[in-house]
Amino acid sequence: MTTVLSDMNLVSDERGKLTFGEEHANLPFAPVRYFMVYDVPIGTVRGGHAHKACHQFLIAVAGSVMVMTDDGVTRSEVLLDRPDRGLHIPPLVWSEQRYEGADSRLLVMASERYDESDYIRDHDDFRSLRGPAR
Amino acid sequence: MTTVLSDMNLVSDERGKLTFGEEHANLPFAPVRYFMVYDVPIGTVRGGHAHKACHQFLIAVAGSVMVMTDDGVTRSEVLLDRPDRGLHIPPLVWSEQRYEGADSRLLVMASERYDESDYIRDHDDFRSLRGPAR
Repeated sequence: MTTVLSDMNLVSDERGKLTFGEEHANLPFAPVRYFMVYDVPIGTVRGGHAHKACHQFLIAVAGSVMVMTDDGVTRSEVLLDRPDRGLHIPPLVWSEQRYEGADSRLLVMASERYDESDYIRDHDDFRSLRGPAR
Repeated sequence: MTTVLSDMNLVSDERGKLTFGEEHANLPFAPVRYFMVYDVPIGTVRGGHAHKACHQFLIAVAGSVMVMTDDGVTRSEVLLDRPDRGLHIPPLVWSEQRYEGADSRLLVMASERYDESDYIRDHDDFRSLRGPAR
């Protein structure tokens, strides 16, 4: 599996904008957990781990967050800078997030409950699991 | 059932703040749908309906949103103005939301897929269903 960037549904009228996602449509799983990161100093890089089983779905609900991913073969960067865009990060993909703007806020929905043993926090461990021979 | 306002988990350090919720802990259900409302002119009131079956969980991910609820007996107002606070609105509660600040953004997680027949959009219908005899 690889990361997938999606433009989510958007309804716009004079009362504002409404963006939405739904399982079995454009949301790849039903989240059992969410977290939101905010009040982050500009330029701070957070994340820096992969998951063994947990899927994540990332939305920049305010500001802009550069998301770097590495699936062991391909490294890529994608800028999340609008609430109607979502990035699905499947398991076994390394990810880091750089908070680009003042008051950037990142919402993450997760397919699994919090479990510290699901984290791969050492990049060498990740590379030996996923990467090409060095 | 009635509305419940919860202070969610919050982890704060020099890299910023992280707030989270999880089903079977402080999130009352596993959402299968989300929507987010933004770019709303200040003072706009949105919502104005109840649901027959759908639970909703509201978080002001930015700015401040005044949420008015009516369960047929009690009308109340609660100001959502921080990302680490969530409001659970169960079925058969009428709700309206007033966007108080510039760039106020409301995230709603929902327990059910979108179904127009789940909406009660007429307040008289709602009152005859829930309210005291008039």
